[in-house]
Amino acid sequence: MTAPATMTGVLTPVVTPFDDDLKPDAARLLKQCQWLQSNNCGLAIFGTNSEGNSMSTAERIALMEALVGGGIDPAQLMPGTGCCALTDSVELSKRATDLGCGGVLMLPPFYYKGADDDALYRSYAEVIQRVGDDKLKIYLYHIPQVSNVPITLTLIEKLVKDFPDTVVGIKDSSGDWSNTKAMLDNFPGFGVFAGSETFLLQNMRNGGVGCISATANINPGAIHNLYATWQNDDADDQQARLDTVRGVFEGFPMIPAMKAAIAHFAGDGVWKNVRPPLMNLPDDATNKLLAELDRISFKIEGV
Amino acid sequence: MTAPATMTGVLTPVVTPFDDDLKPDAARLLKQCQWLQSNNCGLAIFGTNSEGNSMSTAERIALMEALVGGGIDPAQLMPGTGCCALTDSVELSKRATDLGCGGVLMLPPFYYKGADDDALYRSYAEVIQRVGDDKLKIYLYHIPQVSNVPITLTLIEKLVKDFPDTVVGIKDSSGDWSNTKAMLDNFPGFGVFAGSETFLLQNMRNGGVGCISATANINPGAIHNLYATWQNDDADDQQARLDTVRGVFEGFPMIPAMKAAIAHFAGDGVWKNVRPPLMNLPDDATNKLLAELDRISFKIEGV
Repeated sequence: MTAPATMTGVLTPVVTPFDDDLKPDAARLLKQCQWLQSNNCGLAIFGTNSEGNSMSTAERIALMEALVGGGIDPAQLMPGTGCCALTDSVELSKRATDLGCGGVLMLPPFYYKGADDDALYRSYAEVIQRVGDDKLKIYLYHIPQVSNVPITLTLIEKLVKDFPDTVVGIKDSSGDWSNTKAMLDNFPGFGVFAGSETFLLQNMRNGGVGCISATANINPGAIHNLYATWQNDDADDQQARLDTVRGVFEGFPMIPAMKAAIAHFAGDGVWKNVRPPLMNLPDDATNKLLAELDRISFKIEGV
Repeated sequence: MTAPATMTGVLTPVVTPFDDDLKPDAARLLKQCQWLQSNNCGLAIFGTNSEGNSMSTAERIALMEALVGGGIDPAQLMPGTGCCALTDSVELSKRATDLGCGGVLMLPPFYYKGADDDALYRSYAEVIQRVGDDKLKIYLYHIPQVSNVPITLTLIEKLVKDFPDTVVGIKDSSGDWSNTKAMLDNFPGFGVFAGSETFLLQNMRNGGVGCISATANINPGAIHNLYATWQNDDADDQQARLDTVRGVFEGFPMIPAMKAAIAHFAGDGVWKNVRPPLMNLPDDATNKLLAELDRISFKIEGV
C-alpha cells in the first residue's frame, strides 16, 4: 500500500542535557548520541523524553546543526518537529530535511483538543506542502495520553493515500497493543514503531519495524539485541529481562529518573537537570532508584 | 492579601487575521484592535481565541510591535505569553514587558500532563526570575479543558505569597462558577477575570474585575456596557441578552464562527481564515449562523 519505511530498528528519544542555567548542552548531547550509536540505536531527538517541546525552535535547530556538524550521520536522526504553531513545524521539518535527516517524528498540533481527521489531515498537509521536498519522510506520532490529540486509523489512511512517499510510518505510544496491531494489519509496508520496548517482540512478530522507546536511553544495547535476534529461541527471555529493567524506571517519573541514572553511571551530575515543568529527581528517590537497579544487577555501561 | 490588579474591565482575546497564505495580517489586526478599543475593550491578544499558540514566537513579537508601533496604548494589551518552552515564555514575556504591556496572560507549560503544584510553581518562578523586571504583571490562565493543565488554588496561593507584585490576577475559563467563586473568596484583591461574559454579572457582584471572553470579539460594546453598569436595575436583562448572543455562537466551532461573522459584517472575506488545526467555517454553517443572528436581530456594528 505504501513505500517502505526508510528507517528501522531501535531509536532512542534522546534525553537532552541542560546545563545548570538550563541551557541545552550540545557537546554532552553529541557525546550521548555517539554512545547510543555505538549501541546500534538511531536517534529520535526532540521527542517527549527529550523534553523537545520544552525547547524553542531556535534551540532545536542549533542542536541539530551541532550534531550533524559534530559528525553524526543525519540518516540516523529522526527529530521531533511537530509543534502547535504551523510555522514552527514547517521551519523545523524543513531544516531537518535540508540537513539530510532520515525522517521526522511529527506530533499533530496539540493545543486545541477535539480536532477531527479532516482538521489533522489539513495540519499535516500544510506542513508537507510548505516544506515542499520529496526528501521529507514523516513518522506520525501517536501519544494520546500526552498530546490528547489522537491519530486515528482513518487519518493514517487519508495521509498515506495522498502522500505515500512522505508519510511513511508511525510511532504508537498509546500503550495499547490492539491499536498497534490494527495499524500493522491495516497498513502493510507502513513503518510501525512500537512506542515502548515492552511491545518490541510482538511488534516484530507482526511485521513492525522496531521501537522508539524511552528506556533505550538507559538500556540501548539489550533492546537492540532483541531487535536484531527476535527470531532466536531466547527472544521471550530477552523480552522479560527488558521488561524487568523498564519496570524499575516506571516506578519513578521517567525522564528525571533516566537522567538521574545517566548522571550516576556517567559520574556527571549535570545530567540530572530537567527543564520545568519537570522536576529533577530528588536525592531520596534517586537513592531508591539506584538501589532497585542494583537489586536487579543493572548498570549503564560505557555512558 | 495582594497588590491590586492593574487591569480591569472587559478584555477581548482578539481573533488574529491571517491572509490567504495564512500569514498574520498586522494591518487588519491593528484596525480590529482600534475598533475594539472604541468599544471600551482591552486587548488580550494571543489567547486561545486568537490562535496564539498557532503562531511562532517571532510572529507574535512582530504583531505586538506592529500594534504598539501603530499607536495602540500598550497599557491596554495583555498578550498571551505562556508556551511549552521555557525560553519562548521568557522571550515573549520580556518583550511584552519591555513594550509596556499592562500585563501578560500566561498559560502553564501544557505539553506534559500531570505536573503538580510544585512543578507549575517552578515553571512560573523561572519565567519571573528570567524576565527579572518589576513591571511584569502576570495573569494566570486557567483553561483546563484545553490546556489539560489546571491551576489550583494552592498554586495561586504559593505564587501570590512569593511574587505579590507580579502574579496579580487570573482568567478562569473553566466554566465552573464554583471555582471562580473560590478564587474570589480566597484571594481578596487578586484580579479575577471570568473567562466568559456568561459569568460577568456574578463575577462583578462577588468582587471580580471583569471578563476576558471570546464573544467580546463580536459583541464588545454590549458586554462592556454590562461591566460599566452592573449595579443598574437592568443588569439581569443585559446579562440575558448577552447570553442569547453567546448561545448562538456556541452552536458552532467558536473561533471559525466568530471570524465568519466578522468577515460578513466587515465585508472582508479574508477574516474567515484560520490556521490548522482549525478549519474555516463551511459556507452552509456560515449561512445557518447568519440566519440565527438575524433571528435574534444581532449585528456587529462598525467593524
